[in-house]
Amino acid sequence: MAAKEVDFYFDFSSTNSYFAAFLLPAICGRNGARVNWLPLHLAALFRGTGFDVMAMHPAKARYLWEDHRRYAELTGLPFRRPSRFPIKTSACLRAVLAVKQLSEEQSRSTDAELSAGAFSQGIFRAYWEHDEDISDRAVIAALASELRMDQKRLFELMEDDQIRAELRAVTERAIQRGVFGAPTFLVGDEMFWGKDRLDFVERSLRR
Amino acid sequence: MAAKEVDFYFDFSSTNSYFAAFLLPAICGRNGARVNWLPLHLAALFRGTGFDVMAMHPAKARYLWEDHRRYAELTGLPFRRPSRFPIKTSACLRAVLAVKQLSEEQSRSTDAELSAGAFSQGIFRAYWEHDEDISDRAVIAALASELRMDQKRLFELMEDDQIRAELRAVTERAIQRGVFGAPTFLVGDEMFWGKDRLDFVERSLRR
Repeated sequence: MAAKEVDFYFDFSSTNSYFAAFLLPAICGRNGARVNWLPLHLAALFRGTGFDVMAMHPAKARYLWEDHRRYAELTGLPFRRPSRFPIKTSACLRAVLAVKQLSEEQSRSTDAELSAGAFSQGIFRAYWEHDEDISDRAVIAALASELRMDQKRLFELMEDDQIRAELRAVTERAIQRGVFGAPTFLVGDEMFWGKDRLDFVERSLRR
Repeated sequence: MAAKEVDFYFDFSSTNSYFAAFLLPAICGRNGARVNWLPLHLAALFRGTGFDVMAMHPAKARYLWEDHRRYAELTGLPFRRPSRFPIKTSACLRAVLAVKQLSEEQSRSTDAELSAGAFSQGIFRAYWEHDEDISDRAVIAALASELRMDQKRLFELMEDDQIRAELRAVTERAIQRGVFGAPTFLVGDEMFWGKDRLDFVERSLRR
């Protein structure tokens, strides 16, 4: 039997993706499954679906921030409402793909997906815990250095046309699979949307 | 200490309100709290917020029906996707308010809220389990008869200007309290939106 896998589509601008990025690995860990970290360009996806986060009714937006605060309290994750919202994330999303390629180029003992996971969690923390401006390359540089990555090569890859095309391809493929928002989890063809469905993801992995 | 209460805003056209209508009473029961059944005219509320359920992206609509099916499987509720969706619910919503008044007029031993709850669950079942056309008064009449209510007086009240004004007032008051969708639960000033927050409602009742 092939190893179990969860395709995890996320964007750094999505609050619920932040929560999922820290809760999903534990769920996968205890069920012998691996996480495929798949950066999704939500801004591009929403251009197609017509969704506009800024068009949200103020009463709903107010409620959702309070809901996130309660969820952080429940999970113990040190979530903090960022002062910049929404934020451009395309550079960070390309960086995730660049980290995977860098990891393969360096034939490190660390798996490309594990590197992508550590990097992605670092960006999520910077934005949703430390209120950093993740559209600023300095944040990516600092994280790369912390994770002992080759910064120069990482930035080269990030700006490479091939990685730009790959981000478009990952997003396109997600749309073809029925993805309409983030976080989305796919276990085989079973799709689950939102952090509130992590229990369904776990039930699916247990079967 | 005053008895604990949950203000439950619902509309019969809301799938998640269906689930909440059967799950909330058990939660309240085991926490010594009462449910206030508050019919919310979602169509009127959405005219104010600009939300349009029919404008939903097809990929999202498809996913949500599958998600409801899974949730029904999990909870054991005999949910079935209705052939008419969405549906006009204003008559049923007024009927809930009429049932409360009827219960008071008759000074029955049953509490007005309990009567409203039994009636509301009956309408939810008719639509979300038996695929009945709840915009048809015959469904209301059959349920009233099943619950041994004075049908003639119920229909009189339903069409009364006072009950019409009351439905508008309940909806207006909800909007003033920050309600933007259904189901919404208020425990004092704490607001929770969606069946996925019933666990938060229970935690709030336990405090």
